[in-house]
Order: sequence, then C-alpha cells, then structure tokens
Amino acid sequence: MKNKKDYKIEILAIGSELLTPYYQDTNSLYLTERFNDLGMEVFYKTIVGDDWDNLVLSIKQALDKSNLIVGMGGLGPTKDDRTREAFATVLQRKLIFKKTILKKIEERFNRRKLSMPAVNKKQAYIINGAEVLENRNGTAPGLWLDTGTKIIILLPGPPHELKPMFESSVWTRLQNFRTDYSVRKILKITGLTESKIETLLTDLYPREPGLKITTLAYPGQIEIHITSHSKQSQDLAEKKTQKLIKNILKRLKENVFSTSGEELEAVIGRLLKHKTKTLATAESCTGGFLGHRITNVPGSSNYFLHGVVTYSNNAKMNNLGVPSDLIEKHGAVSSQVAEAMAKGIREKAQASFGLAITGIAGPTGGTPEKPVGLVYTALAWDKETEVSKNLFLGNRETIKFQSSQKALDMLRRHLFKFHISKED
Amino acid sequence: MKNKKDYKIEILAIGSELLTPYYQDTNSLYLTERFNDLGMEVFYKTIVGDDWDNLVLSIKQALDKSNLIVGMGGLGPTKDDRTREAFATVLQRKLIFKKTILKKIEERFNRRKLSMPAVNKKQAYIINGAEVLENRNGTAPGLWLDTGTKIIILLPGPPHELKPMFESSVWTRLQNFRTDYSVRKILKITGLTESKIETLLTDLYPREPGLKITTLAYPGQIEIHITSHSKQSQDLAEKKTQKLIKNILKRLKENVFSTSGEELEAVIGRLLKHKTKTLATAESCTGGFLGHRITNVPGSSNYFLHGVVTYSNNAKMNNLGVPSDLIEKHGAVSSQVAEAMAKGIREKAQASFGLAITGIAGPTGGTPEKPVGLVYTALAWDKETEVSKNLFLGNRETIKFQSSQKALDMLRRHLFKFHISKED
Repeated sequence: MKNKKDYKIEILAIGSELLTPYYQDTNSLYLTERFNDLGMEVFYKTIVGDDWDNLVLSIKQALDKSNLIVGMGGLGPTKDDRTREAFATVLQRKLIFKKTILKKIEERFNRRKLSMPAVNKKQAYIINGAEVLENRNGTAPGLWLDTGTKIIILLPGPPHELKPMFESSVWTRLQNFRTDYSVRKILKITGLTESKIETLLTDLYPREPGLKITTLAYPGQIEIHITSHSKQSQDLAEKKTQKLIKNILKRLKENVFSTSGEELEAVIGRLLKHKTKTLATAESCTGGFLGHRITNVPGSSNYFLHGVVTYSNNAKMNNLGVPSDLIEKHGAVSSQVAEAMAKGIREKAQASFGLAITGIAGPTGGTPEKPVGLVYTALAWDKETEVSKNLFLGNRETIKFQSSQKALDMLRRHLFKFHISKED
Repeated sequence: MKNKKDYKIEILAIGSELLTPYYQDTNSLYLTERFNDLGMEVFYKTIVGDDWDNLVLSIKQALDKSNLIVGMGGLGPTKDDRTREAFATVLQRKLIFKKTILKKIEERFNRRKLSMPAVNKKQAYIINGAEVLENRNGTAPGLWLDTGTKIIILLPGPPHELKPMFESSVWTRLQNFRTDYSVRKILKITGLTESKIETLLTDLYPREPGLKITTLAYPGQIEIHITSHSKQSQDLAEKKTQKLIKNILKRLKENVFSTSGEELEAVIGRLLKHKTKTLATAESCTGGFLGHRITNVPGSSNYFLHGVVTYSNNAKMNNLGVPSDLIEKHGAVSSQVAEAMAKGIREKAQASFGLAITGIAGPTGGTPEKPVGLVYTALAWDKETEVSKNLFLGNRETIKFQSSQKALDMLRRHLFKFHISKED
C-alpha cells in the first residue's frame, strides 16, 4: 500500500458453526484491540460458512471494499476447510506444495507417537507468493500475502492458535502499518452512577485529538476505557493518558478502585496482604458468591480464613450467635441482623474483619416493606461496625453481584482510609 | 419471492460500537435460532459502522448476495443513526413522513411527563412501501419491506427492543416463509467424556434428513443440542426428536441429567424439594462457589440450610470438627478430610445431606504428590459417606466449576438411585 492511512481492514470469520445459534466469533474482539493499538481501525466484520460459493463471494466482496483482510478459520485438514483454496481462486493464484511445512506437521504428529493422517497433507499447500506464519499450537500454518495492493492474512480459527500466531508473526509485520503510538488503560469505579460520573467529568472529556474514552456501565461497576494515540512517540501517548487519569482521579477520588484493570476482589486481596490482615464472611442472599469472588484470587488462602452461608434463621443463630429475638423483632433482613452477622463471623473466625450480607435476591420473597433487592451489608472490625442499606435493581444474579460488590467495597474504603491515616 | 426455498438470509448489524473491542453482536444468535425454527438458515452476518459510505456499500453488497436482509441498529434519533436513509438510498426509494408514528413517539414521551426532543422527529420517516413494526419498548419503529424480489427487515439494536418486536411483528410475517416445522431440545450430560459419548452414540447419529445434532463440550458438562425438522407437521418433528432422545437415554443412561435445558443445581433443587430433604455444604477450594450455584435457584431456601467455607485448617477443625490429627496425617486435601467435612457439616446443620469439597484449584499450591486439580468431593447421608477423588484440568475458574459439578452430581445420582428404589 502506498500510504499508511489508506488501509481498510476487514475481518472475515469463516466456518458454518459461526452461523448457528451456538458459537460467537470472539477472535475479532482481540484482533480489533491489537489493530487499534497500532492506530488502525476495523471497517467491516463478515461471517460466512463453509459453502464454497458463499465463501468465494464473500472473499470477492471483501477484496472489493477492503485492502487489509484477515481471514480466519477453515485452514484445517477436513474437506470443509477451504479457505486457502477459496482465496487462491479469487486471487487467481496457484496453491504451491511446501515440503518444509509437511515435515513440520509430520514431526508434530511424531512427537506424540502418531503418524500423520493423509488428510493433513493439504495443510502443506500455500498460496503462491505468500509467506508462511508458523503455528506452534496446531497443524494449520497461517499465511501472509502482500499482493502490492492488498494485504491478506490467513489465521487458524481456534483462539489458542490464532493469538500466539498473531503475536509472534503478524504483530512484527504490522509495525510497518503503524500510524501512531497508543496506550490503553481501564479505570474501574464503584459507588457512583453513570450519570453522576458523566456530570463530574463532562468538561474533562477530551477535545484533544487522539484521546478516546468509552464508558461501560454494569450494575455495581462502571469502567472507563481510555485509549491515547500519539503520532510522535509511545512516551507522549503515555503522558497524555496519565494527565487525563490524574484529572479523572481528582474528580472521582476513591470511587475509582483500580487503574490497572484489577477486579475489586484482587484490590482487596492486595490491601489485606499488605497489612497482614485477615477476613471472614457471613452470607445470606448471596449464598456463597462473596466467598467465591474472594477466593477467585490466587493466594487468597493467605487472608481469607472462613466463610459461612447462613441461609436459614437457625444457621444464623447457631453459627453466628445472632440472638433469636433480634431476628424475631427486626426480621432476618435487617440492619441489626447484618451487624450481628458481621460481628459473629469476625469473632468466630478470629479474623481482623467480618463482612456480612443479608437481603432478598428475588424473584420471590419480597414484601411492600421489604422488597426484592433490599440488601443490608455490614463490616465489623475491632469493636466497631458499619452497616449499609441498599436497594438493588435487577434479577437474582445481578442483585447477588451488586450485594457482593457493595460488601467488598465497604472493606476497600475502610482499608483505604486506614492506609491514608497510617501514612499521615 | 417465488419459491420458499430461494431465500438467502443475511444479518447486517450496524453500529460503530460493534467495531470496537468492547461490544459483541449477540442479537444475531437469537435471530439465527428463530430463523432455524422455521427451517430457514442464515447465510451471512456482516457488521459495519455508522460511516455513510461504508454502510451504503455494505447494504449494496448484502442486496447483491442475499434476498432476506435483517438490518439492525442505527434507527435511533441521533445523526449517527442513518440505517433508514442508507437503505432508502440504495433501494432508490423515498422516505415518507408518517404522522401516526410521530404521534406515538410523542405520546411515549408525554407518558413520562417529557416533551419529545426535536431530533426524534426523524424516527417518524419510513421507506416508501414499507410496513411499520411497532416498538413497545422504545422510540424507534421497525420496518418490513417486501420489494417483490427482496425482503428487508429493519430492527432496533437494543435486545430488549429487538426481541419483543421480532416476536410480536416479524414472527407472524415469517410464517409464510416457513419451509418446515421444527423442535429444539437440549440434553445436558455430566460424568462422561466427549469421546466416550461419541463412541456410545456414533451409530445413532441421524442419517434421517431433518435431524441435526450439535455437541458442545465444556469442562464438566457436555450438551447435545437436537433440532428436528419435518415438512409435514410439528407433531412429526416432535416424534422424531422423542425417538432420538429415547435412544440416546438408553445409551447414556443417568449420565444425562436434564432433557429440558435445566442446570444441574436446578435438577437437584427439584429432587430435594420433591423428597423434602435438606442440604448443607462445606467447601474449601471452591470458596463458596458450590453454595452460590445452589442458591442461584429461586426457592433454594426451602432445602439449602447452611454452608461453610473452611479455607483454613483451623476453620475445618473448629467448625466441622475435623480432627487435627487427620489433617496432620493425610493433609487437608485428602479423602479422609473430605469425608470428615461432609459428615461434620451434615451434623452441624442437621441436614439430610452434607456435601464437601477439598482440593487444589491452583495456579500455585500443587506438589508432585498433590498436583493442581486434585480435588476430593464427598457426600454424607444417614450414617454413610461416599468420597470421590478427581484430577481436573484447567485454570482456577474451570477447576472450581468442575469441583462443584462433581459434588452436585454425586448428590443427584444418589437421589436418583433412591428415587428408583423407592418406586420399585
């Protein structure tokens, strides 16, 4: 291509399974991210099955409208895998047999004490003029073809083959197409609504070219994805990002729990480890989900001692010492019971912190006074406790998530304050 | 279209956000399923952004190769929403203003005590000759246009608008295109490998036309999706499916835990409820995930009494009465400790069943004798216990899933046997 700016990228995903209700193309999200890192944008994504005529037609149409085409899938050994042949046909180029490729495929089978099935031989053919992209995780080699006017990249469909091949062979070749340098950062936020964040940041949102912000809102968590591009250098792209992040942090303060993509449970794990503090949990409506999240972090056994799921009132009384008259008087879903649960589990486990959740996850069990989504979360430390009353919207699953998020966030804010005051 | 069989369906998803790394088109999976229900197949899926030239080119190409085109997205009120205009331009048809549509949009705003912003007026224009598809969940109306040679269906992008519109307005119109009747069923299996299932079923796999089987394998669970088509009637499609399912069940027996799409935790919930039995859990490496799954089922408070997450050895001893010499002698990850945990939690919670899990979820903590993925699961009832030693492959997340799956499945098989013997 004559001018770096002239590329039009199309991703062509090939495979009949991608036209069923069962499979989603996920490779293209990864590829898009990597192209964006180079300042390159994807113009089209197309999905077509194994049918020869449809495949040929899609390739023709792709070549008509785009000049950098990533074809993925259909490089396997079966008779349905005809991506190589279809591209060769449309490009009017021959398929050339490569002994060196065949040898590598045979060796791959031999290493596993197998002999290569005859069908795999077709994988040793490449489109005339193409460079071979080695596949360290499968038999299908990839191809890179520069026709002078078009770049064609063929990659295997399985993500564990496609990604390493892209990183090891395609990424270097694409450096010639780099239009700029870029940095990507993710800020994760909880405790503010999307519209509140918009209001707080509206005048900050970049008028500068090359800075791009995408806000993704989930129940209980909002993410700000920042991409910064610079024509000059990586360093400048980094500086622009850091300046923006600094300004965002000034506005959103400790509501931002991560600037590195870390999940909330990982942030807490890091803080607890750093302070050599321990944690125990008592859950009702989340049913174990809070413990699940905490223990998703490798090494959590260093600080997570014990959790209980006290679904029944008896379990709350017998295991956490929640007084029965408290439950009778205020109900199991109440500020008082949440507090007693947090204190109870902290003492029982002899942990630095006790976290508790009691609420109504729905869809049934709500009343006018205590509707579905009413959830109390409590944190106990030393001789103190803090309780939060929440009304979450959504289904059972999102209410469970928001409840665990709120509980974890109470602990994070506490550790954060503690951290600050210690350093005063 | 002259012949029902002549349709070629293309789904065209429109929106620049779909060309970023953040958003995935999920509508097309739903649409594909519904088209398949009518015996219709999707030939192409295309994704294009809001850019006018690219959009027009994609529509032209779609009309060149397909004759039933579903365009979705880009029907909103902003200046980026130009799907209507682009289709009108390519089809060389005028956009006609419809007072009745405007009135409905205005009413929608009025009901919420808002006045309609001026930008929304453009949503009241339709392509000349098109029928309006009412949107009960948003402002953007859909369109159905039959040009004589092509069918064009325009739908709003948000799934909560698209799906109801499809069901209420598109589905009826598509009945004319129905080529046959179909039935869809999902069998869920655990306890057999994918290759074992293949071997057991290989001669069963349908040579009959109109029966289609897709096997989806996940760690710990395999699904067989069956679609059956009949030219004659719904009843015949149903009969073909039932015959196949009966034959599959003969081979795979009680390894099939559901023929209705139910999750394992729901199956167990149903069985426990039916027998008025109760359950308590003791988890180590799954950290609460087992309890989380059990309590994902609405109404689980009827049978799930209590769960503990005993991550530390102390917690295992103090809360479940696991003898310290047992842990010292065999280690926390051992058959003996798993058994003691299951018994301990059953007694403590006074439940009919105790389920326990202890293992190494990784990525660290493995040794040559006790590698990552070694997990013991145990079930206690009356005065008996059953323990299973498992070696799961995968990352922390999939090991946690497989462990919970195995534990739940031990209980299911037990309840199943009990169920059978009771009915003898």
